[in-house]
Order: sequence, then structure tokens, then C-alpha cells
Amino acid sequence: MNAGIITIGTELLIGSVLDTNSKYLSEKLSEIGVHVSYQLSLRDDFIELSTQIKYLLGKVDILFLCGGLGPTEDDITKEALAEVIDKKLVLDEYQYKKMLDRFSKLKKIMSPNNKKQAYVIEGSKVLDNKWGTAPGEVIEYNDKKIFLFPGPPKEFEPMINYYLKSNIKENNGIVLKSLNITGLGESTIEEIIRNLNLEKEHISINTFAHFYDTEIKIIAEGLDEHSLNVEVNNIVSKLYSTFGNFLYSEGEVKPKEALVRKLIEKNLTIGFAESITGGLLSSKLTSVKNASKVLKNSIISYSNESKVQVLKVSEDTLNNFGAVSYETSIEMAEGLYNMGLCDIAVSITGEAGPNPSEKEIGTVFVCYYYKNYFEVKEYLFSGNRTEIQERAADAVITHLLLNIDKEGE
Amino acid sequence: MNAGIITIGTELLIGSVLDTNSKYLSEKLSEIGVHVSYQLSLRDDFIELSTQIKYLLGKVDILFLCGGLGPTEDDITKEALAEVIDKKLVLDEYQYKKMLDRFSKLKKIMSPNNKKQAYVIEGSKVLDNKWGTAPGEVIEYNDKKIFLFPGPPKEFEPMINYYLKSNIKENNGIVLKSLNITGLGESTIEEIIRNLNLEKEHISINTFAHFYDTEIKIIAEGLDEHSLNVEVNNIVSKLYSTFGNFLYSEGEVKPKEALVRKLIEKNLTIGFAESITGGLLSSKLTSVKNASKVLKNSIISYSNESKVQVLKVSEDTLNNFGAVSYETSIEMAEGLYNMGLCDIAVSITGEAGPNPSEKEIGTVFVCYYYKNYFEVKEYLFSGNRTEIQERAADAVITHLLLNIDKEGE
Repeated sequence: MNAGIITIGTELLIGSVLDTNSKYLSEKLSEIGVHVSYQLSLRDDFIELSTQIKYLLGKVDILFLCGGLGPTEDDITKEALAEVIDKKLVLDEYQYKKMLDRFSKLKKIMSPNNKKQAYVIEGSKVLDNKWGTAPGEVIEYNDKKIFLFPGPPKEFEPMINYYLKSNIKENNGIVLKSLNITGLGESTIEEIIRNLNLEKEHISINTFAHFYDTEIKIIAEGLDEHSLNVEVNNIVSKLYSTFGNFLYSEGEVKPKEALVRKLIEKNLTIGFAESITGGLLSSKLTSVKNASKVLKNSIISYSNESKVQVLKVSEDTLNNFGAVSYETSIEMAEGLYNMGLCDIAVSITGEAGPNPSEKEIGTVFVCYYYKNYFEVKEYLFSGNRTEIQERAADAVITHLLLNIDKEGE
Repeated sequence: MNAGIITIGTELLIGSVLDTNSKYLSEKLSEIGVHVSYQLSLRDDFIELSTQIKYLLGKVDILFLCGGLGPTEDDITKEALAEVIDKKLVLDEYQYKKMLDRFSKLKKIMSPNNKKQAYVIEGSKVLDNKWGTAPGEVIEYNDKKIFLFPGPPKEFEPMINYYLKSNIKENNGIVLKSLNITGLGESTIEEIIRNLNLEKEHISINTFAHFYDTEIKIIAEGLDEHSLNVEVNNIVSKLYSTFGNFLYSEGEVKPKEALVRKLIEKNLTIGFAESITGGLLSSKLTSVKNASKVLKNSIISYSNESKVQVLKVSEDTLNNFGAVSYETSIEMAEGLYNMGLCDIAVSITGEAGPNPSEKEIGTVFVCYYYKNYFEVKEYLFSGNRTEIQERAADAVITHLLLNIDKEGE
């Protein structure tokens, strides 16, 4: 089955708002074997929208219209669709009552505009919106299926999760698997995979580079889901034996999540003495659930005073080598370790810019301080201030993920 | 002038990659008065791409083709365009030489595939790519203008900044102004603006809600740029006098940037004792340039041990009231303040979930500790773990931004 997505809203076309709905919906559709051919964004313009609905209905089996279901005059999606497929808009009594109840609960007066949201295309199946006001709809039209969904992602995403699968019949089976690799570049990974000769006509293997890791996405399509699963599992085993430790997780598990899991598994705690990253590194870990089992304490040491007073870095070291140096990174990590609140103390100090000072912008020293040994890594990152901070934080997480097994050796 | 944007790449249509280029380009085009009517994303499919290029060339004055200029077989943008406008692809000697030089510098062998990137549409103006390999192009065709740009945002964005304005003639003047408001809801702001009756036929005022602030965007179009400026300035003054302190910045200045500026202006330093936000609050501030002038030290206190040992919270307080409490928040802030490394100490403790413990998930206590007084705010945020952390951090930044003037009173 072949699908098109139209997201509607002038704010998208003037670049004030980023369209995340098309990506979200496309990913969900791919997972159930629906081929998305078009993602189109249009203004709140009745004639243009009607024209494009008509055009795409000539090209796809399923059409999604997202946004433009609100109470204002700009919201014209239902009206445009009704005109194209020659249907009336009718008041849905249940939706209207729900709306009246809500307004009376909030002790607000409902304007006539709001009533508009309770109108639906005649003969449609109404998809109740438990996350907002405007309901969704599915309409069958000349062997096509047309979906209407509200635009705000907070409503759109849960509605897709709740209503999509049950309202689309799948004919082809599809098996999807994604694996995450860190510590190797995308081109290297791609070359290795090509040489393994794993692709078949009905199985595609693609790589997608993110900041500090690469996703391998395997998509297998066919009628017999059981044999697809067997084939995909064989490919996955081969990738595991080829990439070893570099293949650190499956599915949507990010490096930071894999690291928290690994630390819990090994019953280790970690702490950060952050200068250049200013809290970013700790916040990446603490955004993961159960982080409190592995992170007890970190110090954001964004000045020499703090380094001396809190981390006990010696003033001589700061004077002789500077805050961004091999030597300071060691004393920062040692000071944190000696606070006794972590098994692994990681310090990070560097130059994020934009104003250059003692060292070249992008220079970063990281000290990994374990019970029996320590190591210092020096990096040079490119990019602007926040990019350097992001890259530095991700480099530390990646390094820990690939090397944590050494701890205690 | 009327424009269409086609972004090309199967990864977009299967939802593996978010298209940020369309938003980026649309915003830049709006700023110079170009009306974007279509944002379309398509797969790497020769027939489909040719069809849509032909279709949109019938509808717009300027067409942008973004992506699909790489060296692989999937990259077919130039080939599809050449067919539609009936032109040949010719080798650009300068681009080819540049490519050979680069490969010889890297001591790599250039594959025949790479040579493909040095081919351009005959008669086009080549836009040299200083940020990557594939050059951009502008082609004049039947009174239309067609732009080709490489897809990776790291190349796309600087190329847009470098080449867009100089290659598009503006006929209409446009004046754009955006103002940022925090501390009031979007619907309230919108109502106030409507009641001020500021809009005219050629001046639109729209509001866009972000997480913790709302952007007011004023767009004025007309032939006389001078009088447009006068009109927009009048509107801006009225908005300033209406919204007072809530209107905290203009343009792309975010609350965190406005806060850093305000602290520098007032010569005040700040520190955070972060429990629930685990470094997020500090990292928001330290992502802003010159943050080191106002933030010297923060403590991420993610356990009772750290609260007692580092922040000197009494064990009695923790036992009697719990880590997430009014009382603990005060002692955390006081402990941080007493370290002597900040003028304003802010503590934040709460329950982010997903596993409930002592308090309801979303409960947050923040203590603002100044030289002569302190205040505690209690919040209840909804959302998942990271949303609660984000909202809590943004609430603190907003509160500081609106109340910092009180310090020292």
C-alpha cells in the first residue's frame, strides 16, 4: 500500500515551526509495511489544499491530512476535504456534548467557533481524541482511505499510536530490526556490511549516521512472516559476530541508556567533574530512568575557584599548566574520586569557545579515574560552542560504553 | 515570488531522518519576502522525482531541490532535473580538479562514483561548496529559477546563508520582527494582541507557543520599506508598553540567553544545587557564551549521601521530610550558598519518575536563596521523565528572568 501525508499550517511554510509529524507517521507506517511516497506541507489555503488533496488522491491508496482541525477561521482541513469528496459536514452529538462538558467544568463560555470542532465528515468513523479537543476521522472513499488527525504533536503522536494499526489492514508481512553501533564511522560500517553480502531482493539493510553512533536498519518484506524472522535473525547473528563490542544495542536504546544499563549490571557508580560540558554529561545520564542507581553526585566546576575549593586541584597545577590541561584533568578526577561518592570518576575540561583563551577552541581533556588506574584522553572537536559540548559529552559516553568492561581488571 | 521546496531522500520517507532543511530554508525565504507554497519530500525515485519537478515547475517561480547530490547510485537529483529541462550533464573541470586534490591530500583513491559529483547541468551557475564535496547550482529555465543544494544540514545551512540572498532578486520589501514573551500563556497573549487591533492588511501578527515562552512574529510587506519600518516600530513600542517585563527579548534570544545577559549586566553570579534536573539546568546556562562570567560552580546532588556530605543538608531533615520537600530544598540552597561561589543559589529537588517514590511524580521544590532572603516555589509538572526535567529547568530560568530584579532590594 502506498501513502501520502499532507501536513497543514502556514506556520510550517514560513519556517516558524518544524514539522515532526511527517517523520513520526512515516516511521510508524514503514514499520507496518506501508510505503510512504509523499510528504507535503501546505499553507492554510482552501484552494491550494483542495487541489493537492485531489491530486494525491489520484496517486495513493491512503491519504493522511494532519493539522488544521482547530476552532479558528484558518482551520480549513475538514472543509476542503468535504468539498473534494463531495460530502457534508455534520454535527457529531457525542463530540459536541463532550465539548460542552469540558467548558462547563472549566467554567468558561464556549464560543461558536469551538462548536466547529464537533463537526465531522458525514459517514466517517470518528476517532475520539483523548489528548485534546479536535477528534480524528477515517473516511472510506472510492477504495481509498483518508485519515484526519489534529496537528499538535502532543495529540498527534498518541493518536497515531492508538488508532493507526487497527485502522490499516496489512497485506504483506514486514520484519524490522535496528541495531546500533558506536566507535566506528558510517562508511566503514557500510563497507563491512556490503562485503558480508547479506542483502536480498526482499531484504534491505541501510545505515543511518547519528552524532556518535550509527543505526543499521534491516527491513524484510514478504508473505511468510515466519521465514522472514528466521532470515532476519540470521543476519542479526552475523552482524553481532562481525561487529562484536561495537554493536552496543538494539532498537531505540541510545548510548546513554546502554551505559546506564551496563553500570547497573556491573553494580558500579559514576560521577562527573564537568568543566567544559557544564552539566550536559550528567544531564544526559540523569535523563535515563534508574540513573539514580549509578549517579550519586557530580560537580560542575566552571571556574578555577571551584576547581581548587571543591575538587582540591592545586593552584600550582592551574598556574603551571592551565585549567585546560592533562594535569588539571587528572587532579579534577582524583578530587571527585576522593569525595567517595563514585566508583568511576570522570573529569572533563576544555575550550568551548567562542572566545579563544589558553588553548585552541575544541581542545578537550578527559580523565577516567578508576580504583586501580586512570587514563587521560585528549580530543580536538570542531563545531560551535554547543556542538563542541555535545560532541565531547557523547565521546565520553561512547568511550565508557566500549571500555567499562576493563574496570576492575 | 512563489517558491517550492523538494527535499529528496528515501531516509526521509521511511521516517529515519527528520527533515530540518525545509524549515530552515522556508524561514530564510520568508525573511526576504518569498512566499513558500510547497514543501515536498520524495524518495530517491527517478520517475517520481521527475514527475514532481515538472508538476511544481508549473506552479512556482523558484524551485529548490535539496539532497540527492552524493556519489552513490541512489543520488539522482541532477539526472532527473536534466531530463525534465532537457539539458546535458557536463564535467565541471574546476570541481573535478578540486576533488582530485582533496583525494590526493587524503591519500585516498577516488572511485569513478565520486567523479559523478563533479558533473553539473550545462549552462548552470555553479555554487562552490566550501563545507563539503557536492557543489550547488542555480539554473535559469523559462523565467523560472531552479536551485540545487546538497542535503546534509552541515553543508545545506551555510550554503543557504552564503548564496541565497545574492541569487534572488527581491521586488517587495519585507520587514520582520519577532518578540519573545514568557510568563503568560499563548491564548492570553493572543487575546491581548487582538484587542489592541494592531493588524492591517499588509501587516500580520502571529503567535507561536514554545515550551516556556511564546514568540510574537510581525511580518509587514509592501513597496516602501521605510514606512514599513515606522509602522512595525510603532507596533513594537505598543507591545512593549502592554506586556512590560513579560516581553523579555527580541529575535532569536532565548530565555537562557536573556538570563545570562541580565546576570552579567547586574554583575551577579549564580549556582545550582540540582537533584531532579541532574545537570540540565546548569547545562542550559553553560551552553550560552560568556556563561563562565556568571556560573562558577554547581552541585549535582543525586543522592542523600551527596546532599549530606556536599551540601550539608541535615540527616534529620532528610529523614523527617524526605529529599523532595520544602525543607530539604532550603538546606540544599543554603549549603550551596555557603560554599561562597555564587551570589544566588538555586536548589531544585523533585520526583521525575517513572517509578513513584516518596512524592507524586512531577512534584518539584525550588529554593531561590539570595543574600538577604530566600523563597521556595512548589510546582507540579506533567509529562514523562525528560519532559518533567525540561519543564522544571525552564520554569526556574523563567522565574529568575522575571524576578532577578528583586535581588538586593
